[in-house]
Amino acid sequence: MNAQPVIKPYVIGLDLGGTNSVFGIVDARGEIKATTAIKTQGYDKVEDYVDACVDALQVIIDQVGGIETIKAMGIGAPNGNYYNGTIEFAPNLSWAHDGVVPLAKLFSERLGGIPVGLTNDANAAAVGEMTYGVARGMKNFIVITLGTGVGSGIVINGQLVYGCDGFAGELGHVTMVREGGRMCGCGRLGCLECYCSATGVARSAREFLEKSQEPSLLREMDPAKITSLDVSIAASKGDALAKRIYEFTGDMLGKACADFAAFSSPEAFIFFGGMTKAGDLIMKPIEKSYNDNVLKIFKGKAKFLVSGLDGSSAAVLGASAIGWEL
Amino acid sequence: MNAQPVIKPYVIGLDLGGTNSVFGIVDARGEIKATTAIKTQGYDKVEDYVDACVDALQVIIDQVGGIETIKAMGIGAPNGNYYNGTIEFAPNLSWAHDGVVPLAKLFSERLGGIPVGLTNDANAAAVGEMTYGVARGMKNFIVITLGTGVGSGIVINGQLVYGCDGFAGELGHVTMVREGGRMCGCGRLGCLECYCSATGVARSAREFLEKSQEPSLLREMDPAKITSLDVSIAASKGDALAKRIYEFTGDMLGKACADFAAFSSPEAFIFFGGMTKAGDLIMKPIEKSYNDNVLKIFKGKAKFLVSGLDGSSAAVLGASAIGWEL
Repeated sequence: MNAQPVIKPYVIGLDLGGTNSVFGIVDARGEIKATTAIKTQGYDKVEDYVDACVDALQVIIDQVGGIETIKAMGIGAPNGNYYNGTIEFAPNLSWAHDGVVPLAKLFSERLGGIPVGLTNDANAAAVGEMTYGVARGMKNFIVITLGTGVGSGIVINGQLVYGCDGFAGELGHVTMVREGGRMCGCGRLGCLECYCSATGVARSAREFLEKSQEPSLLREMDPAKITSLDVSIAASKGDALAKRIYEFTGDMLGKACADFAAFSSPEAFIFFGGMTKAGDLIMKPIEKSYNDNVLKIFKGKAKFLVSGLDGSSAAVLGASAIGWEL
Repeated sequence: MNAQPVIKPYVIGLDLGGTNSVFGIVDARGEIKATTAIKTQGYDKVEDYVDACVDALQVIIDQVGGIETIKAMGIGAPNGNYYNGTIEFAPNLSWAHDGVVPLAKLFSERLGGIPVGLTNDANAAAVGEMTYGVARGMKNFIVITLGTGVGSGIVINGQLVYGCDGFAGELGHVTMVREGGRMCGCGRLGCLECYCSATGVARSAREFLEKSQEPSLLREMDPAKITSLDVSIAASKGDALAKRIYEFTGDMLGKACADFAAFSSPEAFIFFGGMTKAGDLIMKPIEKSYNDNVLKIFKGKAKFLVSGLDGSSAAVLGASAIGWEL
């Protein structure tokens, strides 16, 4: 898939975020040959957004030798539906908040009919890891994205899992705390995301600070403004309370992964996103908790890895990787 | 796969249970053409067991026109490993309790080299439903077997999920109760199986009876001897406490299925095994709890079905279906 000579050597990746839309033209080894970006907002109609995108894209397409060199395009977007190539009711996109927008079709029409695929960011990350990252050669693995929320992309038998409707892989919303769980943005209680996202870690920090009088570097801050990065910095300075917050977070992620193993027995769990910068602080507790909690036949088998994609371009690379699958 | 004319029109299915080994020769429509059985125990060596099996099999193979008419053989067995065709450390099998037994290879050698596949009973049930049962035409579904334990067979993109080691699909061992959960046979606490297997229902009955003085038909019995069938009979007679036991059981199964939906978004959950005889008593609470607890995008989408395979021959049919996949 990615090592063979191809007549069309490039794919386009679009990381469609709430603020910026970042494009990259990528070769089969994951090298970004050209890149550009526009603002995502400020368009009332999706057609205007696509027009602005194509104007920016045309410049870098010309740089690499024209549209003839492009095999396909992949888009990673919030609320992206792979089966239909649509973005559906995306609350943060002005041109897609109250309907179903056929984004893949619109791009394909404007780009000489090349195949265009679209999926959510976490699924794009999973295909990115399989194509260019630490999951190369793996057939069964789970990518867990730890950002503002907790997302996931699941690969089984070498294929991304979309389920019957395209919405599979919402592992941020398995229920971890069934009694007295935290309120989640999805309207339910006790979801993994409420505890293990960056926002969840900040929430844990406020809870831990309230529950005790233990001294901590975090007490010097306005509790409402504490971020997961602050907790990570305090922990790396030896702050005991901050360390326990990461242990608590890792413990819950490990327990969740133990349940996921009972489902698909993956070769690896791959963590992606800003929170992985905490390194061993989060990864060690995850792996320990996993092996303490998982069914005996799975103990010690799974690898716990941090994304192999370069942070700043990971989302574009992930999106572009969808292009190779089309 | 199952509607086309084939030169070898039959597969052999072996339901390898702790007591009996039941064989069937099955056609592509799931009709059992011939059947036989031997005792599973009483053999020290696996070779002796296979010899006895082949002696019995030969009679029914001759009945359908000889080994030339047989495409393949499928085996459903406890502790069966699909990738290796082995049975591994099966505590209840005298000839396989302390090692790895290459059962598929031994059968293939004794049956003229036909392909022989082997998997655990729940996976066999899933392939059986897909080939002959209520999952025909479905690409994404989960079979949950409710018997002495709780097993599962997961199908994604039309393929059974085996994971990296062949042991995926152990959904009876996701953790449902994280604080003060019941002790499970696997050595861990709070597994789905401790609550929702037939044994789990009996355990719930004893707990419910102890916790209150509420009158119940179940109080006429020796608590130690209550079975899930007794609870089901009492409930069908209108016994309020017995009904609540099934509601409790269904509620937990529904919550577990809500988590499974976040993983693979299946089109259907299919329930298999003795406990499904309780019918609406168990199925209605499962579906209600699922829709009450699942993420909004999945609400009302999944079907909740009871196995379409005839109870007495379901296990043989499931095992035989593995043969069509080889």
